[in-house]
Amino acid sequence: MILAESIKKFISADRVSTNETVLTNHSKDESFHSASLPEVVVFPKTTQEIVDIMKFANENKIPVTPFGVGSGLEGAAIPKNGGISLDLLEMNKILEINPEDFLVRVQPGVTRMQLNKELGKYGLFFSVDPGADATLGGMAATNASGTTTVRYGAMKDNVRDLEVVLADGKVIHTGGKAKKSSSGYNLTELFVGSEGTLGIFTELTLQVYGISEVITAARAVFPTVNDAVQAASSLLTVGVPIARVELVEGQTIKYVNHVMDTNYAEGDSLFLEFHGSKGSVETDVQLTKELFADFGCVQFDFEIDALGRSRLWEARHNSLYALIHTNPGKQVMNTDVCVPLSKLADSIEYTRKCMGEADLQGDIIGHIGDGNFHAGVLIDPNFPNDLERANHFNEKIVEFALSCGGTCTGEHGVGLGKRKYQRQQHGEALNIMKSIKQVLDPNGILNPGKIFD
Amino acid sequence: MILAESIKKFISADRVSTNETVLTNHSKDESFHSASLPEVVVFPKTTQEIVDIMKFANENKIPVTPFGVGSGLEGAAIPKNGGISLDLLEMNKILEINPEDFLVRVQPGVTRMQLNKELGKYGLFFSVDPGADATLGGMAATNASGTTTVRYGAMKDNVRDLEVVLADGKVIHTGGKAKKSSSGYNLTELFVGSEGTLGIFTELTLQVYGISEVITAARAVFPTVNDAVQAASSLLTVGVPIARVELVEGQTIKYVNHVMDTNYAEGDSLFLEFHGSKGSVETDVQLTKELFADFGCVQFDFEIDALGRSRLWEARHNSLYALIHTNPGKQVMNTDVCVPLSKLADSIEYTRKCMGEADLQGDIIGHIGDGNFHAGVLIDPNFPNDLERANHFNEKIVEFALSCGGTCTGEHGVGLGKRKYQRQQHGEALNIMKSIKQVLDPNGILNPGKIFD
Repeated sequence: MILAESIKKFISADRVSTNETVLTNHSKDESFHSASLPEVVVFPKTTQEIVDIMKFANENKIPVTPFGVGSGLEGAAIPKNGGISLDLLEMNKILEINPEDFLVRVQPGVTRMQLNKELGKYGLFFSVDPGADATLGGMAATNASGTTTVRYGAMKDNVRDLEVVLADGKVIHTGGKAKKSSSGYNLTELFVGSEGTLGIFTELTLQVYGISEVITAARAVFPTVNDAVQAASSLLTVGVPIARVELVEGQTIKYVNHVMDTNYAEGDSLFLEFHGSKGSVETDVQLTKELFADFGCVQFDFEIDALGRSRLWEARHNSLYALIHTNPGKQVMNTDVCVPLSKLADSIEYTRKCMGEADLQGDIIGHIGDGNFHAGVLIDPNFPNDLERANHFNEKIVEFALSCGGTCTGEHGVGLGKRKYQRQQHGEALNIMKSIKQVLDPNGILNPGKIFD
Repeated sequence: MILAESIKKFISADRVSTNETVLTNHSKDESFHSASLPEVVVFPKTTQEIVDIMKFANENKIPVTPFGVGSGLEGAAIPKNGGISLDLLEMNKILEINPEDFLVRVQPGVTRMQLNKELGKYGLFFSVDPGADATLGGMAATNASGTTTVRYGAMKDNVRDLEVVLADGKVIHTGGKAKKSSSGYNLTELFVGSEGTLGIFTELTLQVYGISEVITAARAVFPTVNDAVQAASSLLTVGVPIARVELVEGQTIKYVNHVMDTNYAEGDSLFLEFHGSKGSVETDVQLTKELFADFGCVQFDFEIDALGRSRLWEARHNSLYALIHTNPGKQVMNTDVCVPLSKLADSIEYTRKCMGEADLQGDIIGHIGDGNFHAGVLIDPNFPNDLERANHFNEKIVEFALSCGGTCTGEHGVGLGKRKYQRQQHGEALNIMKSIKQVLDPNGILNPGKIFD
């Protein structure tokens, strides 16, 4: 309460809250990690206000944890050590759209759907699609990626510049407007994925793309998951510029059909999207069909119109919801490893096996062009043993990924959940990360307890 | 001499040289920056030897400057403060080719042509092409890019992992084998482009691509440079996956025709390359021709066979040589800015104007899909005033680029030449870069005097 009063001296009182509901809403994300209440939630409107907050917090050694829409899956936005939850949703302005340079400048609280709605007027789109309508600041903070990353890259590939307020209140720009640069150190990609532990993003300059003349979605059904994985790999080998290639297991499609009232073929499938001109898409589709035939593709269905296409991706994004919907009262825990492509089929097979051994029910969906997949397993919140089993299952999947040179997190971030793997994955390099953290945040006030123990 | 004797205690004497010619060869690169002799040149063969060298150098506060083939253009490999020149050409093994994962693991002294020769056997290629047959270690150190970057990215986009020996001799891996990761801080992209100031690269894991079924090159001639720039931009707007799009001025083509015995149309041109399947390339070419017609394209010539194609890119890469060849006794100084696409035509026009005002002769070539261009101007080494005028010209080009949000170096690196612009370009962020340098290299032994004054 004293903290809130101190902050009200320099931030308008109506944007400094200790209301219990507000505190509770900022104590958790969409994960199973334990909630932790902030002492106060502040809703800044400008970079200068964040400068003032950071100076105050740094002088008084008060933890600051940035917060967007709370859609994180590894607890990165949970204010583990209390202090200030910095809610950035009031900073939700699209500051500039520059179609000639394929650039936009936004505040961190702008969500990706909000941005895409505006960009559509210019025939442009922002490519990174993690499913949730997350804030762009949050997406940059976790180096989010998703269904279109196979073609357009992850956040790190699409952030050109960040305005960052550092722990001591100084403001830097990490990059510029040029498409490439060999000047200075690459701070942009150091800050992307740093989960609020190195500074607060107050502006983002993002690369956008022209909306293709033709966008065609399709579903390809295969005899087995392994066939689908091999078929997807063949697209990359040949260099088909596929915009989306997602693995969806047959079982998941059953759930989806039930909930979404669709009638998709219920086999192990790839959900695909092609972007290009009329001619190039026709060519790509034809080549894809020929390649897929070699892997026993039994059915290939198109979604040509915008409605069918959006229903397809809604179904893909809702697959977890479908799982929950068909199992009322349960919740889903999600794994998130990424492995070299050559290990993807083995990893998925191993995951299925572990799921069976742990007597867990769930499905596997994957951004398989990147080697990234998620196993979503059902948990009954009334049975603590369920979560324990799911955590143990998750550990086995991560261990397998690390054993083949993969990563403990492909796109959800480290947060609280993947801290225990940082030493194993990064070895001696973890000390370098810690020393960078130490020099940029000597008082340890920026999102303490995340990434590092 | 005493230094060499000390090093010979732990490195085989035949790989520790104080021979005057060897020292001279390691005192310069291909730039106009003043040569500076190292005290000794060491040719390590293993990571362990580099660990030993760094431990010794760190204890005794001796500068260490890594050296590849010396093809740099900003003096990054010049041992400004003497000490050890670390020649990495003995570490030239391709350690692993992994076609399934599109990955290779190489030592830092492997050159890009050496790698591509080997990769060809697997139907693969490494995309980054700066023109010179540079070492991959050197290319990673400067975040090199080039003609194919518009489609396949710069070094930073294609390095998956680095093994780095730090100043104190500790060895880290910055990344892993997974195509994407949200784990820890992104050290790989911090080290790429750090020009040997943060550590010595001893192994690189690189992403490679499948060689396209069809590769077609073409030349498109336009009435003016501005038309060519606008036409190139239109390709990106529509999303044609062009693999190369290079601006070559008409005057340069005249030189090239003279030297290479070609008969290319001598107008302001785009040199293009299309990669894809037979069908997709046909479609892309057709669309390109239609787009280019809107910008007054007067001629469109194909190079379909491998010979014609390789001659075309040889001509492009040799354009500077052609300039020198037609002006015997002179040398070329090269600028290297990168600007937002919307400022490219203005920048090139301004560059032409400045070239005229400075009474300099030269040509402009550009990786124009990236907004990166080089003005090569002739200098007579017997007239010191020539270099001075060229330097002043270079300054004006950089100032213009910075004034429109661009970068002082698109791909050659900072080295010695672009240090003076670091504060102007990076502002407060330069202090963060310096503090990272300080924490990773407290004794300042890693390539001192580069990037920072």
